[in-house]
Amino acid sequence: MKPATTRTRIEGVLAPVITPFRRDLSPDPDRFVRHCRWLMRSGCSGLAVFGTNSEANSMSVEEKLELLEALVGSGVPAAALMPGTGHCALTDAVAMTREAVRMGCGGVLMLPPFYYKGVSDEGLARFFSEVIERVGDERLRLYLYHIPPVSNVPITTALIERLLDRYPGIVAGAKDSSGDWENTRTWLERFAERGFDVFPGSEVFLLAGMRAGAKGCISATANINPGAIDRVWRNWRSPEAEKLQAEITATRRIVQKVPMIPALKAVTAHFANDAEWRRVRPPLVELTADEERQVITELKAAGFSMPGL
Amino acid sequence: MKPATTRTRIEGVLAPVITPFRRDLSPDPDRFVRHCRWLMRSGCSGLAVFGTNSEANSMSVEEKLELLEALVGSGVPAAALMPGTGHCALTDAVAMTREAVRMGCGGVLMLPPFYYKGVSDEGLARFFSEVIERVGDERLRLYLYHIPPVSNVPITTALIERLLDRYPGIVAGAKDSSGDWENTRTWLERFAERGFDVFPGSEVFLLAGMRAGAKGCISATANINPGAIDRVWRNWRSPEAEKLQAEITATRRIVQKVPMIPALKAVTAHFANDAEWRRVRPPLVELTADEERQVITELKAAGFSMPGL
Repeated sequence: MKPATTRTRIEGVLAPVITPFRRDLSPDPDRFVRHCRWLMRSGCSGLAVFGTNSEANSMSVEEKLELLEALVGSGVPAAALMPGTGHCALTDAVAMTREAVRMGCGGVLMLPPFYYKGVSDEGLARFFSEVIERVGDERLRLYLYHIPPVSNVPITTALIERLLDRYPGIVAGAKDSSGDWENTRTWLERFAERGFDVFPGSEVFLLAGMRAGAKGCISATANINPGAIDRVWRNWRSPEAEKLQAEITATRRIVQKVPMIPALKAVTAHFANDAEWRRVRPPLVELTADEERQVITELKAAGFSMPGL
Repeated sequence: MKPATTRTRIEGVLAPVITPFRRDLSPDPDRFVRHCRWLMRSGCSGLAVFGTNSEANSMSVEEKLELLEALVGSGVPAAALMPGTGHCALTDAVAMTREAVRMGCGGVLMLPPFYYKGVSDEGLARFFSEVIERVGDERLRLYLYHIPPVSNVPITTALIERLLDRYPGIVAGAKDSSGDWENTRTWLERFAERGFDVFPGSEVFLLAGMRAGAKGCISATANINPGAIDRVWRNWRSPEAEKLQAEITATRRIVQKVPMIPALKAVTAHFANDAEWRRVRPPLVELTADEERQVITELKAAGFSMPGL
């Protein structure tokens, strides 16, 4: 494939959007679009729909494409979307990625195939290359999704080197959810100059990331706290930056005392006064009443709110 | 749902059938059916198609259903089939399981949803219950697939207890690929009397398993060594049993010196004189020439062959 042409890249704060489910556990496009629009109004520059926090891996290709079509149809700009399109099955990953590009999505965020463990960089390079070649579209901007605590299949620095050599411009960056700042820094040092955009996977690393050349962050808590995280992104060079960073870090610490995905849903349910948001798909379970009380109480004590929700 | 009615259960040696791929990496139904027929002629009582060794998680639901239809259409008895139907996405798991039951499969072998880690028994119980309720068919025989080294999501003894209480007869057994004999023995002691059939995930534990109440085994190497493994199953009470067991264990040890899935394919390619069999789907890679030479040389030195292939 020819080298990709230059285009505006997604930067800033992205939310891995939580997915609402109806009573029958089917995805709820109306609530989903409503939440996405609130996020875009409230500070998010983009939406990494179908991430880990979206329970994306608990949905089929068809269910995700239906939500994506509803979202693009609602007028949220496709250029601001970075849907997760990674699947264990090569053909599923290709189908998702192809549709995302066809709809004009600004990028795709791809998990490695995560069933087989201990696979080689050669095997992973073949997988990503096969997806890129089959999609065969210069508009593709592929962001690699490194989340070893969940996927148990890491994206190594050597793998990025290899893919970037082969597909410059197409291989556009990565989300680093390792929680290991040394890894993020290594990638920024090695690849930022090569048009490879690094997004830490938590706003805890946002200010440090920006100072080292990151493009923003893609973070679970951007689902509930987009405005404050966006302020750090916009003001990272200002004298206030440290203080703003300390505030969003404090909010994050409260939420991650309990299981993250049901917590984001419980907080959204509480502040939207909409119990439907609490629902998760198995194998996840909702927060207990005690857990929910704890997180809401602590957030309120810290002055947290979700204005305009 | 009402308790399941009694039916003949699958017993004996089952192969998690390797999946042949064409040059374009699409599944090859002709070679697949041919290998399945050879396995059934050569000692297998049943076929656990779409297991880990089948690269099942590298295929989409549609690709697997196409292979299953070809297999059932070829005259291999559906009652002898125990396809893998587990998926991370609830809806995919339901779709696969429903089709398998509709085609008359003797059982299904279900992985837990394996993306999210550290999930609770409550979450897994909800997942399996949801599949059972949605399929809603008394013919369903669900075997739980415990393979923590790969899935990283274990099936606990407490989870089995819970599912068996709720769906006796429907929850029909398990494949234990933990490699932990103590776990297998615990399950046999606790559940064998309750119509819960335990299959060790390796023939290395076949004789010990049969003596403790197992129903056979479901093992990778049954793809290449079905006859010898079947002899242990048929003769486990005979004075020869220890000697026969030692032979199949020795063969297994040779194969597992190199990566198992490409090894099974390389051995099949060699003995079928059909290079097409070597192909794997990414993220897996073929054996190196050295690895292949090693495994073939050692197998031949041990007198191994694949008669009638």
